[in-house]
Amino acid sequence: MDISTSYFHQNALITGGMGFIGSNLARRLLDFGANVTIIDNLDHDSGGNLFNLSDIKDRLQIIHADISDDHQLAMAVKGQRYLFNLAGQMSHLGSMQDPFKDLNVNTIAQLKLLEVCRINNPEIGIVFAGTRQVYGRANYLPVDENHLLTPLDNNGVSKRAGEMYHIVYNRVYGMSTSVLRMTNIYGPRMRIKDDLLTFIGWWFHRLLMGDNIRIFGDGSQIRDFNYVDDVVNALLLCAANPVASGKIYNLGGPPINLLNLAQLMIEINGSGNYQMVPFPEKRKRIDIGNYYGDYGLIQRELGWQPQTSLHDGIVKTLDFYHINKEHYL
Amino acid sequence: MDISTSYFHQNALITGGMGFIGSNLARRLLDFGANVTIIDNLDHDSGGNLFNLSDIKDRLQIIHADISDDHQLAMAVKGQRYLFNLAGQMSHLGSMQDPFKDLNVNTIAQLKLLEVCRINNPEIGIVFAGTRQVYGRANYLPVDENHLLTPLDNNGVSKRAGEMYHIVYNRVYGMSTSVLRMTNIYGPRMRIKDDLLTFIGWWFHRLLMGDNIRIFGDGSQIRDFNYVDDVVNALLLCAANPVASGKIYNLGGPPINLLNLAQLMIEINGSGNYQMVPFPEKRKRIDIGNYYGDYGLIQRELGWQPQTSLHDGIVKTLDFYHINKEHYL
Repeated sequence: MDISTSYFHQNALITGGMGFIGSNLARRLLDFGANVTIIDNLDHDSGGNLFNLSDIKDRLQIIHADISDDHQLAMAVKGQRYLFNLAGQMSHLGSMQDPFKDLNVNTIAQLKLLEVCRINNPEIGIVFAGTRQVYGRANYLPVDENHLLTPLDNNGVSKRAGEMYHIVYNRVYGMSTSVLRMTNIYGPRMRIKDDLLTFIGWWFHRLLMGDNIRIFGDGSQIRDFNYVDDVVNALLLCAANPVASGKIYNLGGPPINLLNLAQLMIEINGSGNYQMVPFPEKRKRIDIGNYYGDYGLIQRELGWQPQTSLHDGIVKTLDFYHINKEHYL
Repeated sequence: MDISTSYFHQNALITGGMGFIGSNLARRLLDFGANVTIIDNLDHDSGGNLFNLSDIKDRLQIIHADISDDHQLAMAVKGQRYLFNLAGQMSHLGSMQDPFKDLNVNTIAQLKLLEVCRINNPEIGIVFAGTRQVYGRANYLPVDENHLLTPLDNNGVSKRAGEMYHIVYNRVYGMSTSVLRMTNIYGPRMRIKDDLLTFIGWWFHRLLMGDNIRIFGDGSQIRDFNYVDDVVNALLLCAANPVASGKIYNLGGPPINLLNLAQLMIEINGSGNYQMVPFPEKRKRIDIGNYYGDYGLIQRELGWQPQTSLHDGIVKTLDFYHINKEHYL
């Protein structure tokens, strides 16, 4: 399926479009000839970064607003063919420190958005950025979509509620909504200035600064990773294919343990070091242990699979940050 | 296990204590010698009814407040040994008509309550009134706690988020929280003035008024029912037993189809009639189909099982309303 034709001259709205995934998606949509509108509040705890879109900002419509703002939202969704709903609070620790902010962005604002779409543009095709955090600790590996959902932190609760509302609005109102449960994502334009959102972003930071990568525990913990372009592919496939309507799909990639990941990053960078440190108590309590996802369902139904190897993805990511690091560190 | 000793001279708080289950629970707690505090806002869409506690109101502390009121809540939870967290928005149709009210009561207020307890009284033992609505349509019967959760309406989403927060606060903070997923409950002090909360309440109403019971569809739909005293037993067993901490349990009872239920109610009442009517579209879209719960887990772990047969429960319920109907119709 050549998805580019689904987007030519089509209107697409991206919530959280200044962020990591959103800004990469916006670029691809422009390549496909879409008319792209961004809504983003540039929250200081989010991945939003003006530099992410600075070179293409004249080709986009950018609305600086919170997705909780019904009025702005109602105007923004009118006339849109697609809505890529990526705005979210992603920090697991942050969700324990400020659970109401987490709930507000990931659940309350999502319900508002769905109501605004139902009232103003029920034909819009919505893809929601979910997370593998909703599973909690894995009972088996790889984790498929039928795995029990036992979130270990507030973020898993609020994101699960957000995805459930999307599915209810499909079932009850016939709206086109789908959910991608995303795993660890890395690549150009991710937040690497601190460890708030992702550990791998922080590892890139340490590597670029010549500091030791710190591995919590013994590094045996297994995770899977997607390069951001592959996630963009999944979003585009999902919105373009009616089969995806009302569905929840895992993303996922080849599993690797964190020690091997650190070694690979250092090897590709050509310099660097790692050290093992004890797991901080606050993180340990909400840590999900080993995880990698079964992405067989989206592979069978939409033909998606990761295209970029971890090696190539790390090369591209380091290349990007070596050139642009002053905007991200 | 003689649970009455767990409550003698103990402080217990009931949110939604003016309602159907709460008021029956309050009576039992008083019988056990507990000091009972009620918090209820008497919302017009809830089961709250001043008459439910009118004869015992001098033996209780009653706080007329919304559970969203952090300040009142903080004062109320201090010094409590147990918290029976029954306040909720239960109407499925109502959750589609006013999804934000539903979310506010069932999720946002629950998170507030947990935060208030964590800060002011982390030793409190909390039991949360969950619902079988979180399962959605059953893939198999009877439905056990490992069944997938695919809510069909906003109420299922908000209640699921509420229960997940309770479990997260157990896992992360070690607080004693447990969840009972309740099925259809009936008995004295339920709201029967309209069909807002339960169909069986409305059937009692019609029967008492000499009107036909209206069955949606052909009456072949299967449900299970608990008499309210059995639900009170489950709440008391749960709070008193440390085994229940961090657990989610189904309640449930013997299955019956709705035609047979109507016939049984009419037979016990000694008069009445039923008629079959087409399923209203709005209800059909969110209807869960056949359902009955597997309550084996709570039976094995806490020794709970329903004690009151459907026949005896209906007798007691009709007896109650024949005497007190002016306060409920």
